Amino acid sequence: MKTYLECIPCFMQQAYRAAKFATHDEEKIKKVLDSTGEMIKSISLNVTPPETGNHIYKNIRDITLNNDPYKDIKNANINEALKLYPELKMRIQHADDPLLTAIRIAIAGNVMDLGVNKSYNIIDDLQEILKQDFAAFDYDQFKEHLQKAKSVLYIGDNAGESVFDRLLIETMGKPTTFVVREVPVINDCVEEDAVASGLDKVSEIISSGSTAPATILSLCNSFFIEKFNQSDLVISKGQGNYEGLSEVSRPVFFLLKAKCKVIARDLGVSENDIVLKGINVKL
Amino acid sequence: MKTYLECIPCFMQQAYRAAKFATHDEEKIKKVLDSTGEMIKSISLNVTPPETGNHIYKNIRDITLNNDPYKDIKNANINEALKLYPELKMRIQHADDPLLTAIRIAIAGNVMDLGVNKSYNIIDDLQEILKQDFAAFDYDQFKEHLQKAKSVLYIGDNAGESVFDRLLIETMGKPTTFVVREVPVINDCVEEDAVASGLDKVSEIISSGSTAPATILSLCNSFFIEKFNQSDLVISKGQGNYEGLSEVSRPVFFLLKAKCKVIARDLGVSENDIVLKGINVKL
Repeated sequence: MKTYLECIPCFMQQAYRAAKFATHDEEKIKKVLDSTGEMIKSISLNVTPPETGNHIYKNIRDITLNNDPYKDIKNANINEALKLYPELKMRIQHADDPLLTAIRIAIAGNVMDLGVNKSYNIIDDLQEILKQDFAAFDYDQFKEHLQKAKSVLYIGDNAGESVFDRLLIETMGKPTTFVVREVPVINDCVEEDAVASGLDKVSEIISSGSTAPATILSLCNSFFIEKFNQSDLVISKGQGNYEGLSEVSRPVFFLLKAKCKVIARDLGVSENDIVLKGINVKL
Repeated sequence: MKTYLECIPCFMQQAYRAAKFATHDEEKIKKVLDSTGEMIKSISLNVTPPETGNHIYKNIRDITLNNDPYKDIKNANINEALKLYPELKMRIQHADDPLLTAIRIAIAGNVMDLGVNKSYNIIDDLQEILKQDFAAFDYDQFKEHLQKAKSVLYIGDNAGESVFDRLLIETMGKPTTFVVREVPVINDCVEEDAVASGLDKVSEIISSGSTAPATILSLCNSFFIEKFNQSDLVISKGQGNYEGLSEVSRPVFFLLKAKCKVIARDLGVSENDIVLKGINVKL
């Protein structure tokens, strides 16, 4: 997805929020804002927003010297999700359509996103998303791809959400590789978060190599790229990965809740809609 | 009021909103954002936010070559308010406390503010504000100052709101000078808006000389400064004027609805609260 003009004030808002999370030192926060402001003239509208995010969050790490400000929140989110795991597992097992219920639950987990300026309550959001209509629903195509797939590449998004991803991976029952970010960025899932979520029990965990809050192929390592090209089914979770991967040429299924109106518009849906959308998918 | 760190992303948001209002040319909007971003490092937290606003909105005028993008909206707001005028006039006349009702109506007009990112419906807001409790209510002091006053300086804020200000001026019944901005900035009231609101019938209209979306004494002309120092009662409408005047040494009564959480916090109230607050007011 390209960068829209309205992403630019949002970058500044994100930088402020993340800097405040990383430090209480007002001078450092001001320095983050000053340098983010200076970056703006170099932002091309032709790159994806998380490519700019990559520079912004690195700059925040450099200035605040805090490499993982969201660590405690990530752990709390993972623990909260793990507590829900047994009940959700049962709910999936007893559902009329276990796969679809697992997809809905995985999307509900996508509300645990500290990159957007929204509060959430995972229990309430779960209840809502379990009933909500999909704004894009390529479920038949998804099932067909899944049925034929010998391997699944599942590109994770946030920590905590990762526990819900595990439920979907278990429900799909295929050999799966779960992809995490290379370094902590916002509350995105890194390797230790994936392990804490129990994903090591149900999948191989690899890093994409991306330090951005998204999967941006030009920032990814060759091992990931090979997996990305060769996997039979690629599932991409969340907004950041959509922003990074929406224009790739291979089939990808995006699972997300549209929490930002720019991304919603790019997807052709409304804010707060839930989405199961395949690109380059033939039947 | 000093500039808080969280004002800085808001400046960028305001610049984007105002630039989009002023032009459809995406390159010009990007240029506004680039140059606003560059300005950030020169923003001191020790100046008031509208002093920075002064540079931002001038920059938007210079880049877009549109000196009054809100002209049509201002006229529409004035006409909408003029249609309500007879009914509101009657309401004040039949109220138990006409002065207090007129103050509430003048505050309700303060929702017509295109500098903040909020939509409004003047009819609904009127109904609510006519019943709402004040979060700061220096009414006794206000009445005492008004009773003794031979002259009132009424510093206006937005166009449209100005019609509601006229009702309060008529209700107070004192010789009044109504103060407008020197040039169009956002939807703030300039001389022709004040005349279109009928304020010329009930007051002398003067410009403060300020080109900022606020009254900032260092930007004001000497004629205004003299009036400001000599008037028996100074009424300041709206957030911008509060930001500019909250630390002056003379008595001022602020009438506003707190639409921004930073200003609300500075005032010691909550967002959406209504305020009648006197500073340097002795009884």
